[in-house]
Amino acid sequence: MPSQDPSAPVPADPSGGSAPSDRVRVRRLPERGAYDRETVDAILREGLLCHVAFAIDGQPYVIPMTYALIDGRLILHGSKASRLLRTLASGVSACLSVTLLDGLVLARSGFHHSMNFRSVVAFGRARPIEGDEKRRALDDLVEFLIPGRTEHARGPDERELRATEVLVFEIEEASAKVRAGPPGDEPEDLALPIWAGVIPLTQVPGAPEPDEFVPADVPCPDYVSRYRRPTA
Amino acid sequence: MPSQDPSAPVPADPSGGSAPSDRVRVRRLPERGAYDRETVDAILREGLLCHVAFAIDGQPYVIPMTYALIDGRLILHGSKASRLLRTLASGVSACLSVTLLDGLVLARSGFHHSMNFRSVVAFGRARPIEGDEKRRALDDLVEFLIPGRTEHARGPDERELRATEVLVFEIEEASAKVRAGPPGDEPEDLALPIWAGVIPLTQVPGAPEPDEFVPADVPCPDYVSRYRRPTA
Repeated sequence: MPSQDPSAPVPADPSGGSAPSDRVRVRRLPERGAYDRETVDAILREGLLCHVAFAIDGQPYVIPMTYALIDGRLILHGSKASRLLRTLASGVSACLSVTLLDGLVLARSGFHHSMNFRSVVAFGRARPIEGDEKRRALDDLVEFLIPGRTEHARGPDERELRATEVLVFEIEEASAKVRAGPPGDEPEDLALPIWAGVIPLTQVPGAPEPDEFVPADVPCPDYVSRYRRPTA
Repeated sequence: MPSQDPSAPVPADPSGGSAPSDRVRVRRLPERGAYDRETVDAILREGLLCHVAFAIDGQPYVIPMTYALIDGRLILHGSKASRLLRTLASGVSACLSVTLLDGLVLARSGFHHSMNFRSVVAFGRARPIEGDEKRRALDDLVEFLIPGRTEHARGPDERELRATEVLVFEIEEASAKVRAGPPGDEPEDLALPIWAGVIPLTQVPGAPEPDEFVPADVPCPDYVSRYRRPTA
């Protein structure tokens, strides 16, 4: 099951590179861990959502947010009025995770049931950006989520820019964890008359739904009708 | 964009019930917030993954995990050797989120781009369970993720039970946040010759993939070939 635990007690020498620190090391099932930026970035490029955690006076919070991976850093954004954004912008220690669910793994034993998944846990801090850098990051964010869109969408005006906080999250350390393939049953269970295998799960775009104001002579762009996430 | 911020500064009186406390209140776009257990539980029933956050000495961690919603409480599990599980089991304050992504919302302005989503943020603490309660919770977990499976799968033996930590996460407070429907463009943008609308996103099960050891006379069960998550 996908608990990507960077904090368990058994030291590990995972195949995907060596862990830069104790904080980030994948301890449980270390053969599933990877620390190279290529593996990490491929997962971050495919995802659309991250979950960002931070603590205020010892109280942990975790919040779903969109993000963009731009030049190895993550762009986060939200309302200037948001206490979350203000807290993150103050440079507190933060941790975020992106998880792609690829399938349910049905083993013969309940114990070996699992999920196929690819996840990243990243540690770092965020800082606000302003001016041209902020304007470019907002374009980058739209383009990361929907490649091709910035050419069509109206860019931000001064009021919208003022209302929006844009943060750069610098990844200090990150690890990836990946499970793929069939169940890993105990040898003595393999002869049991039980169906075992994988139910693949995929995030699939449906037919685009134009709103009621789209003029009849404005076609649905290719980047909408053929929308898909980049895959490694 | 789906930043479900329970900690922003503007008080709110959302339609889905009143917020039980400051910690859990949805402050940004409060009309999207809901605090009734029916809304929260419908999202938790559909999800397969949660992201659990906690802090150790002020350092936040967030970890993807499977879960089950059973009798209004969440079942979490993992290896007894995991420091994450041990930390959670010690009763530290924790926060978890379940997010279902329903679509990309393409507005005419970059500013009003958004996502359709349903998310829950829950605060609480976990405690380990043992004996019959633990054994039942493991069955419940398999059955929550793959209804029908416990009848077929081999149950846990003593070694597997000893290796597994099972936690009950009692939800002290929870809030849901939901965005649905078309983009919310500025009135003056509606006449722009720009395609706008929603790209729906759905998590779709693919054709089941049996492993190489399934006997020829063992058919793929209906609960596998017709797998789907419950929807509200």
